[in-house]
Formats: sequence, C-alpha cells, structure tokens
Amino acid sequence: MYDVTSIREDFPVLKDVIYLDSAATTQTPVQVVAAMNDYFYRFAGNYGRGAHRLARETTNHYEESREKVASFLNADHSKIIFTKNTTEGINMVAKGMEWHAGDHIITTLIEHHSNFIPWLNLKRYGIFVDVIEPDSRGIIDPVDIEGAINDNTRLIAISHVSNVFGSIQDIESIIRIAHRNDIQVLVDGAQSAGHMTVDLSALNCDFFATSGHKGLLGPQGTGVMYIKDPDDLEPVYLGGGTVHGVGIDSFELEPFPGRFEAGTPNIPGVIGLGRSIEYIQDIGIKNIEKHENELTEYAISRLSEIPMVEIYGPDNRAGVIPFSISGMNSHDVAMIMDETKRICVRSGYHCAMPAIEFLKLDGAVRASFGLYNTVKEVDIFADAVGQITSLVS
Amino acid sequence: MYDVTSIREDFPVLKDVIYLDSAATTQTPVQVVAAMNDYFYRFAGNYGRGAHRLARETTNHYEESREKVASFLNADHSKIIFTKNTTEGINMVAKGMEWHAGDHIITTLIEHHSNFIPWLNLKRYGIFVDVIEPDSRGIIDPVDIEGAINDNTRLIAISHVSNVFGSIQDIESIIRIAHRNDIQVLVDGAQSAGHMTVDLSALNCDFFATSGHKGLLGPQGTGVMYIKDPDDLEPVYLGGGTVHGVGIDSFELEPFPGRFEAGTPNIPGVIGLGRSIEYIQDIGIKNIEKHENELTEYAISRLSEIPMVEIYGPDNRAGVIPFSISGMNSHDVAMIMDETKRICVRSGYHCAMPAIEFLKLDGAVRASFGLYNTVKEVDIFADAVGQITSLVS
Repeated sequence: MYDVTSIREDFPVLKDVIYLDSAATTQTPVQVVAAMNDYFYRFAGNYGRGAHRLARETTNHYEESREKVASFLNADHSKIIFTKNTTEGINMVAKGMEWHAGDHIITTLIEHHSNFIPWLNLKRYGIFVDVIEPDSRGIIDPVDIEGAINDNTRLIAISHVSNVFGSIQDIESIIRIAHRNDIQVLVDGAQSAGHMTVDLSALNCDFFATSGHKGLLGPQGTGVMYIKDPDDLEPVYLGGGTVHGVGIDSFELEPFPGRFEAGTPNIPGVIGLGRSIEYIQDIGIKNIEKHENELTEYAISRLSEIPMVEIYGPDNRAGVIPFSISGMNSHDVAMIMDETKRICVRSGYHCAMPAIEFLKLDGAVRASFGLYNTVKEVDIFADAVGQITSLVS
Repeated sequence: MYDVTSIREDFPVLKDVIYLDSAATTQTPVQVVAAMNDYFYRFAGNYGRGAHRLARETTNHYEESREKVASFLNADHSKIIFTKNTTEGINMVAKGMEWHAGDHIITTLIEHHSNFIPWLNLKRYGIFVDVIEPDSRGIIDPVDIEGAINDNTRLIAISHVSNVFGSIQDIESIIRIAHRNDIQVLVDGAQSAGHMTVDLSALNCDFFATSGHKGLLGPQGTGVMYIKDPDDLEPVYLGGGTVHGVGIDSFELEPFPGRFEAGTPNIPGVIGLGRSIEYIQDIGIKNIEKHENELTEYAISRLSEIPMVEIYGPDNRAGVIPFSISGMNSHDVAMIMDETKRICVRSGYHCAMPAIEFLKLDGAVRASFGLYNTVKEVDIFADAVGQITSLVS
C-alpha cells in the first residue's frame, strides 16, 4: 500500500508548508541528504583523479550513481552523462551538433524556454526553426510534426510532458516519424522522469535530457543527459576529464561518457541522485505515478466546481494543473495562498512565455504535485482557491 | 593564534587519513554541510522562480552567497557568476567571445588542461595559439608574454598558481602589459582563491575563473566566474533564467548576471559556498596563507634531505609540491603511501600533460596543503617518502 504519511516523514519541510510546486523543483528526501553528508564526512575526494583511497571511493560511488540512473531509465550506463541541469543537456545538443546553414529544426510553441531559446538562437547561423502549435489542451499532433518535415530537417526537439499544461506528448509516434525520415529527436524529460516510467531503450530517442532535482528527487545542480551515439555530438566544454594524450598542438578526446563531463562534477549531487533513484525504486515508479494521477484528478474535480476558475490542459495529464481566476493576477493569487495558508504554487510565465501567450494570458497559477502530496492538501488548496474567488466576485 | 587543532574538528575525514591532495579538492567544513542541510530541511525551493516563501527564501540565500563571494574577492556582486566548476567559466570565454579567423591567443605550457584545451580547440577556426614556456621552476616571464604579442592578440589565458609547480605567476605585470596592448586577460584562479588574497578590483583582469571546492572550501559542483564587462561575452548556454521577453522569433537576454546562469543552478552548493566564504573570513585569509606557506616550506626542507627525491617548482610558492623518487612510478609511490600510512597524495599528470612532459617525466607525485594540515602530518609524510626511497636504494 502506498503510505504517503510515512513518505512525508522523509521531507521535513512539508510539516511547514503545503508544497504544490514540484514542477519547479521537488523536495529532497532525508535519505538523499544523508548520502551527501556521508560523502562529505567520510570519503570526499575528487572523481576520476588520483589513486588514493578517497579518490577511489568517490569514483566508485559516482559510477554507481551512473549505473543506478541508467538502470532506472533502461539505458546503457556509458551513455548517461551527468549535467548541471536539463538546460545544460539541451544546450549540449544545440551547440554540439554540426549545423550547416539551411538545416531545419522542429520544436513546439509550448516548450520551456530551455528547449526553445537554444534553437531560436541558431537562426542567426542560417538554421530554420519551425514552431508547431498545440491544440487548445496543449497537445501536439504528430501529424503536424510530420507535415513540417522537409529535406533539411535534422532535429525535432520536444518535451515529453509540458511544464505549463501537464500534457503528455505522443513522443513514441513522433520518434517513429522522425526516424523514418532520418531525423534525430531530442526529448526534454524534465517533467516526466520520476513521475512516470521512462524506458529509453524502448523510446529509442537520440537525446533525452532531464533534471535531477524534479521527479528524480535528487539535489538541485544535477541533471541527466542520455546520448545514444557519442559521434552525434562534439563536446562543447573541454577540460579536465574530457581528454587524454594532450600535446602542445593537439589532443584526443576521452571515450564516452568522460568527454562530455568537463571539470570536477557535482560529486555530492550525483551521489545524492543515485540515492534518490533507489528511494524511488523502493516505492515503485508505478505507485508514484498512480498516486500523482489520483491527486491530479481529484484536484481538477475540486477546482472545476469553483466558478471563475479556468483550468487549462487535457483530461489525461501529468501532475501539473495551470489555472486562472478571472480578474486576478496570477502572482496575487500565489501570494495570497502563501500568506493565508502557506500554500506554495507557481505563478507567472513558468519560463514558457510563448505557451502562456498562446493561452492569451499574462500569467497562470500552477499547482504541481509530488509523491508526497495528500488529498487533504488538495482540499486545503481547493478551499483556498474558492475563498480567493470570493474576494473578486 | 591559528588553532589548527580546532580547525581540524570541522573536517571529520581528517581523523581517518592524512589528506595532502587539496589542490585536487579540499575537504568541506561541517558548517558548510550544515548550511546545505538547512536548505534541504527548512526552505528548499527553486531560485528566482516563483513568488512563494520557499522560492523567496532560496533566492535570498543564493544572492547572499553571491554578495559574500563578491566581497571576498573585492568585486561587484553583479559581475560574479556561479558556475559548475573552473572549467565551465573558462569555456564560457572560449565559446562566448566573438572570434575571427586570424585572432591570436597566448597561453602557457603549464596550464591545467581546462585552461589549455579550450584554446587549442579554437585553432580549427583559424585562431592562432602561442604556448609560452616557463623557466625550469615553472615561472612564466612576463617579458616572454610581451614578446609573443602581435597585432591580432586578443586574449592571454594564464593560471594564477600552477597546479603542477605551485609557482605563483606575476599576473599583475602580465595584466598591465596586456591592457597596454588592448588585450584581455583570463586568469585561472583555481589554485589561488582561498589560499591567498585575491583582489579582483586591484588585479583588474577581464575574466577570473575559480572553483568553489578548492581553496574556497565549498562543495564540489560549484565554481565562480568574474566577468568584468557582460558585453565582452555572449552566453553559451541559454534557457530558463537567462531571458525575458520571449517571442516565437526572438528573445531578449536578461542583464548581468542572470544571462550567464542557465537553468536551475546548484542551489545547495552555492548556499554552501556562501557559508564557506564566511568560514574562511572568520579564520582570516592571511592566516591561512601564512599557515600553508609555513607547512610548504617545512615540507620542502624535509623532502630536500632525502636522497633520490627530486622536487620541482620555485622556492617561493603556494602549497603545492610536485616531486619524484628516482626509479619509481608516481602511482606506485602514491599507492604505497596510501596503503601503508593512509596518506592521500596525487600522482600522474595532474590534468596537465604538457607541464609534466616539460619536466621530462611521465608523472609526478604531488603533495598539496590545506588550512587543516599540520606539521606532524608533514613529518609522517616525509618519513614515508624516506621509507619508500629505501625500497629502491
């Protein structure tokens, strides 16, 4: 049985607030913090550098984390790169592919800025970027993607789950269409990994970027990047750890994955992330998904009863609910919820201005759920929304 | 009085090993770990995103860290960027400056790979790179830098302190020469910040990159980059936090420093780094420098007495001592010291192959000191070196 009461014991801050902003960052379980403390107090060394016992133990733990993440995402561990965040992973592709003027990229109108600006920025080099519109619920039709493909299309960059709508895209179909046309696919998994099963071998995407500090419950400052073929990308940042055989005039790159991890990595963060993967596996990703789905459905049913509240996004969605209260600024709603009920929700553009403007809004309130949220919290939240609407009615 | 016994209480792992690898990474004081735990347990939110109390408190702590670092380095806090590591900062310049074929860069033979490969890599775009040789002690003569300058020279990239030799470069003179010729200077401060006073306003360099996890005693996964003028660099990685006013076709960059910090940063790490700066200031950077200098001088005097040991580097140096034992591989020496005495020293190329090859070696042993090392540890270390030489004599 899913024991949310027991899970909540692992997140001390939840005694103090109702945290409904897990799409921005999740809370970190005490077990993960303990694993990081263990590193600092017992065996802190640098990774991959040095023959002494601390360097060796550090390197072993770091590589164990890589194996845990790889196993969880069903990928070859040598193809898993640790990054600072999802953004770094996506930019590694934007800056690391060999682009030619005339190349064509397809992305969508509802991407997070991190999966949008890096592509827009390539326009100055003569790259064309097509931006596909979703339907009114935030769902991208694979047929629209297919229709935008031309002979120069090299990459499709799309989020698995929208951080604005909570909509789950049909990336399986999109990847099939892309590969049939010899086009690569980058999936932004920031809102999917850790919230639902992600099987990279089955998906067969070319790049998958995600955060360590969202669904994966790891610390901020960690991200995961899956690269199917190292030859597809040139490393953007070079330095310690990425090379061997350095001469005055030339150098040789390390094989996968070393060439993509320049400089001393976030070692405590990566060790923490390894522990958080274990934490998720102990609970079971399917149980987490079910719990978050139930909460989301219940929250939508409660919000739907409130006049003046408009909810965006599809019926079948991940645990992300954007809404607005007519006549009220989203930041004001968030501030009132915080000040009156210690409820933490996101407001504004959610780092996705085109998506919010598509809704003809200048901001939305967003409630997003984690494995630790409860029905009681949803009730308090929905009651608070109801009370706020009474202020303006 | 400098109370090393009391300082050592803050580093639990020192009860277990003799740690002489602080040039690779320092140990982290318990106070810094406590500050990170406080974040996780009490107010973890995302940085700069959201109006609720956790996001606000997180943002305040993060910006306080920026102010602490800026004050410690005597720089304007808006010019301080948090990076993953020194390597990221250096690569931000290598990839972010607007280069033209024919441009010329001057660097040195004894740089860490992170301040070497990014420049070598620009050769493919028609950039010329001159590599200045040091003298036999690892000191770069500013006259040699000046002699290499030509009309196309745009950047001089040099480390403040060599991670191989411990040599302290005369960067003040080099910066004066550069600016007289309208050339920018990037200083790699990975081995200087936190070990000696670094005053960026007085230095007046254009870029200063350093690690959070070395002399600054912060956690791994943190780095600091000083950029004198934001217009000198284009951000390499774009995404959440770097832009405002995003349309379908264009975007506007945030002002300094936001435009250079893409995606969710290493928030716990940065908060820890702020605390470690306080820790250093409580002890006093001049006291730390004096302590490390005394240990270094003593260690050199002890090693100098041992036949078969060759020490590299200058008399007046930072706390980095490379040496070799004739007839012995550096890794073997490191392994024996670890296995027999739990002494952690670095061996091999130290991510600086050209420097080691300049010494006509295939590796060196390196002892490096931190504020927590003791004379007694140096004695045990020197005795161990003596015993190892007896194995091969």
